[in-house]
Amino acid sequence: MSESTLPSEKEILELIAASHAAKKMSYSPYSKFRVGAALLTTEGKVFTGCNVENSSYGLCLCAERTAIVKAVSEGVREFRAIAIASDMTDKFCSPCGACRQFIAEFGEDYFIILSKPDFTYVTYTVREILPLAFTPHDLKAERRSSHAV
Amino acid sequence: MSESTLPSEKEILELIAASHAAKKMSYSPYSKFRVGAALLTTEGKVFTGCNVENSSYGLCLCAERTAIVKAVSEGVREFRAIAIASDMTDKFCSPCGACRQFIAEFGEDYFIILSKPDFTYVTYTVREILPLAFTPHDLKAERRSSHAV
Amino acid sequence: MSESTLPSEKEILELIAASHAAKKMSYSPYSKFRVGAALLTTEGKVFTGCNVENSSYGLCLCAERTAIVKAVSEGVREFRAIAIASDMTDKFCSPCGACRQFIAEFGEDYFIILSKPDFTYVTYTVREILPLAFTPHDLKAERRSSHAV
Amino acid sequence: MSESTLPSEKEILELIAASHAAKKMSYSPYSKFRVGAALLTTEGKVFTGCNVENSSYGLCLCAERTAIVKAVSEGVREFRAIAIASDMTDKFCSPCGACRQFIAEFGEDYFIILSKPDFTYVTYTVREILPLAFTPHDLKAERRSSHAV
Ligand SMILES: [Zn+2]
Ligand SMILES: [Zn+2]
Ligand SMILES: [Zn+2]
Ligand SMILES: [Zn+2]
Repeated sequence: MSESTLPSEKEILELIAASHAAKKMSYSPYSKFRVGAALLTTEGKVFTGCNVENSSYGLCLCAERTAIVKAVSEGVREFRAIAIASDMTDKFCSPCGACRQFIAEFGEDYFIILSKPDFTYVTYTVREILPLAFTPHDLKAERRSSHAV
Repeated sequence: MSESTLPSEKEILELIAASHAAKKMSYSPYSKFRVGAALLTTEGKVFTGCNVENSSYGLCLCAERTAIVKAVSEGVREFRAIAIASDMTDKFCSPCGACRQFIAEFGEDYFIILSKPDFTYVTYTVREILPLAFTPHDLKAERRSSHAV
Repeated sequence: MSESTLPSEKEILELIAASHAAKKMSYSPYSKFRVGAALLTTEGKVFTGCNVENSSYGLCLCAERTAIVKAVSEGVREFRAIAIASDMTDKFCSPCGACRQFIAEFGEDYFIILSKPDFTYVTYTVREILPLAFTPHDLKAERRSSHAV
Repeated sequence: MSESTLPSEKEILELIAASHAAKKMSYSPYSKFRVGAALLTTEGKVFTGCNVENSSYGLCLCAERTAIVKAVSEGVREFRAIAIASDMTDKFCSPCGACRQFIAEFGEDYFIILSKPDFTYVTYTVREILPLAFTPHDLKAERRSSHAV
């Protein structure tokens, strides 16, 4: 996969706005921690997501994964960037490790954009926040050397 | 919540058709087990989902949860029925326990419709397939009697 | 698999005691909802577990699954009963759907014992609380009829 | 939390041996990808784990999390290192993002040891493989700035 190009400042700010708007749909009665995400596809479409919690905490789903499964369920699997928004004003909301893994399934070179409610932001590549990722290629490597039971 | 009414035969067959169409978007390179879901809201809208897998198997997400988070992220949390479709011809594909829990977060009286590729189907209520559910009410009960640390 | 026999009253009460003792190890800073579990193997050994939470709520693990993975990691996969304990005094703590699914992987005929802090209890079989379970057999059925991609 | 000290070569090799032994307990009928883990506590005790899979793939649990919940359920929450073992001979098996998140809940300065079946290995700190982690501190930050619903 070739290196992606960072979206333009205008595209980034629109994506950030979409992620903060998506946050308003958050179903988070347990954590009371609202998160929104907006996923930009390589074809320029945007899919938004929010966190959806469950009384059995282990079934809570994050905003990032919501946005990705929406895209995949509409037939889209190629992404340029994902913006993540929370209500924290004193720091950027970083994706959890589970989401980083889910994001990396679809590429390690696209962009993660973290923003605050005032739209200040920082950007990373997937690879930067999930170095040495366990990826689909590992399962294939295993198939070469396996004696699993 | 009052008892829901089973959708009409026509509505059910349309929902089943939508669940089988959604199945085609399945990203399931690991299990090679395609699943689709179609969720009917109380206002008559349909949200579809498919399973989205991950090289770290524990992060795989089922079609049912994909459909529900899509609805929630669009501001909808009240459902009448969810149809589930797989490629199995000799039996109905039942939702896994995790999905039953996720479904039950939004009500125990709506309908689960299981179908085969030939559109034959069976229906259950959420309550029938997740008896004695652990629900949001349990967390509130706990808050009454808690001495947790 | 043949039908299991319910453990004796004495065995049940010992298992309940073990589940309430295990509850004390609970790491539940987010829900403040402590849960313990005690798993009885067919050879009479007991494995205990507690819930272990995470700041990313979706990674929280329940007590029942903790007990089961402990047993499996010690080479044991055949079970007679699992007792579940919480601090709720006005109702029994039922396993979440995800745990029911995890429990059912290892058999549908063993026993679930739910108790209160006063050691009053009720029992069910796995099959009773997860009717129409999606099981390993379904994946094999799929392999017979599959045209997955 | 102060910086940990890397265990001695002898301790590391013993931990690696324990992780490969634990791998033999793997219940992985779906992926056929066996993983073992061995967790060294600050008091010198070792807890081992293996992956435990489920017919509903999303409920599969990794070896690393198995080892950690075993320790926590025995009252131990302070760790020095975790060794991870697979059957891959041509590369090191890296922990998935979900496990990195689970590991980071208990500290960002302890060590991750990845090894091959020939016991060659590499080491990292938690912080190195999960930079900018979302941690318990983030939930507290949120509580300061929240207007969640
Ligand atoms: Zn996440
Ligand atoms: Zn499911
Ligand atoms: Zn559970
Ligand atoms: Zn993992």
